[in-house]
Amino acid sequence: MSEHTAGDARDDADGAGPSGEPYYHVDGELVPASRATVRVDDRGFRYGDAAFETLRAYGGTTFEWDAHAARLEATCDALELTHGLSRADLLSRIDEALSANDLADAYVRLSITRGVQPGKLTPDPDVEPTVVVYVGSLPRGGLEGTPVWDGPAALETVETRRIPNDAVPAAAKTHNYLNGILARQELEGGDEALLRDEEGYVAEGATSNVFFVEDGVLYTPTIDGPVLPGITRRLVLECADDAGIPVEEGRYRPERLRNADSVFLTNTTWELRPVGSMDGVTLEEDGLMRDDDPTDDDRIFETLSRMYDERVEERCY
Amino acid sequence: MSEHTAGDARDDADGAGPSGEPYYHVDGELVPASRATVRVDDRGFRYGDAAFETLRAYGGTTFEWDAHAARLEATCDALELTHGLSRADLLSRIDEALSANDLADAYVRLSITRGVQPGKLTPDPDVEPTVVVYVGSLPRGGLEGTPVWDGPAALETVETRRIPNDAVPAAAKTHNYLNGILARQELEGGDEALLRDEEGYVAEGATSNVFFVEDGVLYTPTIDGPVLPGITRRLVLECADDAGIPVEEGRYRPERLRNADSVFLTNTTWELRPVGSMDGVTLEEDGLMRDDDPTDDDRIFETLSRMYDERVEERCY
Repeated sequence: MSEHTAGDARDDADGAGPSGEPYYHVDGELVPASRATVRVDDRGFRYGDAAFETLRAYGGTTFEWDAHAARLEATCDALELTHGLSRADLLSRIDEALSANDLADAYVRLSITRGVQPGKLTPDPDVEPTVVVYVGSLPRGGLEGTPVWDGPAALETVETRRIPNDAVPAAAKTHNYLNGILARQELEGGDEALLRDEEGYVAEGATSNVFFVEDGVLYTPTIDGPVLPGITRRLVLECADDAGIPVEEGRYRPERLRNADSVFLTNTTWELRPVGSMDGVTLEEDGLMRDDDPTDDDRIFETLSRMYDERVEERCY
Repeated sequence: MSEHTAGDARDDADGAGPSGEPYYHVDGELVPASRATVRVDDRGFRYGDAAFETLRAYGGTTFEWDAHAARLEATCDALELTHGLSRADLLSRIDEALSANDLADAYVRLSITRGVQPGKLTPDPDVEPTVVVYVGSLPRGGLEGTPVWDGPAALETVETRRIPNDAVPAAAKTHNYLNGILARQELEGGDEALLRDEEGYVAEGATSNVFFVEDGVLYTPTIDGPVLPGITRRLVLECADDAGIPVEEGRYRPERLRNADSVFLTNTTWELRPVGSMDGVTLEEDGLMRDDDPTDDDRIFETLSRMYDERVEERCY
């Protein structure tokens, strides 16, 4: 867990540097976004041959840094991308980018590519990585925070299937994102696509993990399938454990979600986001529960969401 | 078929501009490769959200331009990427890049990305594309040409499987190339990876289509599976048809290839490349055939390769 706080962080930061646009951190230099570039010969551009993490800074602290850094390392291991940069080095680049933009509450994207190499698909193990830190303003989080989303998600089951783990491992978070883009392009009015695996079981959203609640039990697809091991997903499972909510990780058909008491999505930026409708059918007016009598069972989303905010509050503000 | 020939093409062109490095063509400007860049906010970099084609110019003429242009259009259709550029416009950029580098015989890569858009995964249909033309010198092709490869390929069946068509269509040639990179990284001494589909049938090489010959019949995996509809693949099938060689497109296990009379690979750069060994077992000393008595059956690779060269010669030189 990082103890860092941007020295001159402001609550009203808008992610803009003096020139009216954010500064990004590219290979050790702070540059205005419009002049932040990579070479077209960079493998990150030619092939999407790059690892990344999406992070959130709250009050100047990059939340769950160690978990994100560990997943980034796992991605780089999967890609056999040896960049030689320490966690401390990477975090200091994030901190510099936040400071340069006077940002305390922010979206952060950290990308590491295999850099420029001769035009061959087979990578050279000798890597001169390209390291990019993107930042942008977000609202305050934690107990006094406001969600980044406008309202409950409209989730739609799409025909595009998640890439199987034996083709590209889902645990690797890379710049190869067309699978999710194709899924999103199928949407007919919804704002998140639900992808199934090759056998028709629910995997995840295009940019989110999915949970559902039924009779007081919290269900989520197992990461044995083609499912990103989300940091927020793991935290939610920890919160459920702390709250004594029974959890099952398994393989589920979309019907299970459509008939659930409630459905919600998680990712680092959204945190926990309720699903208001699935495949065009309203789950409940407030998007949180199916019946009008909110028993304890139905309040599971609210409980977990509050517990998540508490963790953000305790660790960052 | 393009009739264009670079006006000042030289046979000894080395792909280098005056500054000693090639000029690339980026969004309408010719720039030295080391200064040819895209913004880190370009979707081509963030997500590999881009279409591309690899082409070859012979004697200043971009070979099979119409076929490549058509496949590029199919890729852009699959990605719903409406770039608004005509075939003539794209070809003129290629021609300018060839001319600027005094290149007649060249490797060409044409990439079109969805450009810079706000940081959301769901694309905006309003696209300001990024268009990049890469060029590099290659030896002469055609009847008097020399192959770009050093020798027969060492093919290895890998564990990484081809991405299924319902996850990302194989017919779309995009900057999402990690599947092939992961396959190549599995190689243990070989130089091309053979990927199977999820059911274990042979799909293709990491950057090549695969063919094999058995008892005078030419076999190749069907593009109903996760197989790129290669331009060279199609030309080889046309040549086989012209030569009266029976062809079967189907689904085959790696064992079929290992026991075939000969195996070869195709792509635009390699043209037709024989396979000398598969999974560590030498197919034949010269990599072309299994037995020492080259009957007509065994000469299929040589016949097709010559017919391909004839087409290059007729259309470009």
